[in-house]
Amino acid sequence: MTIEKVSIIVSKGSLDGIYPGLIMANGARAEGIEANLFFTFFGLDAITKKRQGHVKVATVGNPGLHLPTWAGAIPGASWAMTRYFERKMAALDIPPIPEFVRMIADTGAGIYACKATVDLFGLEKNDFVPEMNDILTVGEFYSLAAGGEIVFT
Amino acid sequence: MTIEKVSIIVSKGSLDGIYPGLIMANGARAEGIEANLFFTFFGLDAITKKRQGHVKVATVGNPGLHLPTWAGAIPGASWAMTRYFERKMAALDIPPIPEFVRMIADTGAGIYACKATVDLFGLEKNDFVPEMNDILTVGEFYSLAAGGEIVFT
Amino acid sequence: MTIEKVSIIVSKGSLDGIYPGLIMANGARAEGIEANLFFTFFGLDAITKKRQGHVKVATVGNPGLHLPTWAGAIPGASWAMTRYFERKMAALDIPPIPEFVRMIADTGAGIYACKATVDLFGLEKNDFVPEMNDILTVGEFYSLAAGGEIVFT
Repeated sequence: MTIEKVSIIVSKGSLDGIYPGLIMANGARAEGIEANLFFTFFGLDAITKKRQGHVKVATVGNPGLHLPTWAGAIPGASWAMTRYFERKMAALDIPPIPEFVRMIADTGAGIYACKATVDLFGLEKNDFVPEMNDILTVGEFYSLAAGGEIVFT
Repeated sequence: MTIEKVSIIVSKGSLDGIYPGLIMANGARAEGIEANLFFTFFGLDAITKKRQGHVKVATVGNPGLHLPTWAGAIPGASWAMTRYFERKMAALDIPPIPEFVRMIADTGAGIYACKATVDLFGLEKNDFVPEMNDILTVGEFYSLAAGGEIVFT
Repeated sequence: MTIEKVSIIVSKGSLDGIYPGLIMANGARAEGIEANLFFTFFGLDAITKKRQGHVKVATVGNPGLHLPTWAGAIPGASWAMTRYFERKMAALDIPPIPEFVRMIADTGAGIYACKATVDLFGLEKNDFVPEMNDILTVGEFYSLAAGGEIVFT
């Protein structure tokens, strides 16, 4: 038995919130599994022209980083941690978000934006990177996801 | 092939943590898909009488908001951002949490609380809004979810 | 119809981020459901020798705790809240993370670490607790998860 399709929802707007979904989509394509990425809420940042290149690590409220709150809150902490992560990821051949989204789209994965959030944030099609295939309602997402696994990240 | 059932777990206690699960449940019912909502950990706030009307946006540790940490931490920031989101959502006909939970229950979706968390927080049946159908163990949740998709939000 | 297998991904490094996955895995085994835990990103803390015993509650950026940001940020707040949760959980017979992971492994559940994150954090097999069965790529994870539900926590 094998997995035939994964539909991955990306809902968070931090680097550590976006990468897991991208890595899972990319890994699925590498195995020949159909993959769709559906960006919603703050996850939309990963596919808007304006914000795609400026996603940061969450340095407060993330005890996994082992930083005291005051350290995570000083100006520049999030920036420094973000650069640190990006360098570490580059060393593992994991590209920055804009290149990674392009690479995943090139493998044939679908890249979608959630209609409710697009309306909530007052965005339109032109605000998105060209890899974005379509803006879908929740109902359209369910149709697309049928026959596979739904993964909410 | 179609999805027949979704079992959505709501585990976070912020506005941006609770809405995605509610929107997915509501969207499922609109497509005729069976939907169950299972509230656990801080997600329980969405269905307790005392807290349902007081859920806030997380303004720190959420780089997706594009607020500096100091701004997210000033008293009132979370309240102001919450009001802002609620106004934007109302304009899209997405109701506040109490009305939304009632509306979803009215579509025939199941509304459940996680027994382990109910015990952890020292709550009892009477602390919940009347839409809450039952308090379920993890094992009972798996029985309910069989034959569908599990979505953890 | 019953669920035959659950593959639970644990991606967060806070107490409130790790427990839901452990509780779902343990609950699955109690019902005779095959269960695999896959630790990734900050979730790896739950199975490293050095950090397994030092996981804390996220006290900032978590409006579900109903603490003002300044209170969550004072030194010791996270420590105090963590002790409070651990005492409440002990009263419900939910063990601390190290014992809980051991107990779940003893039920026959698989305990896996995500290769990309292991490389990212510069870890090696010897850094993990003995319950960790193997380090898996995303592709290997999908093979393992086939025929069951994927739950990302």
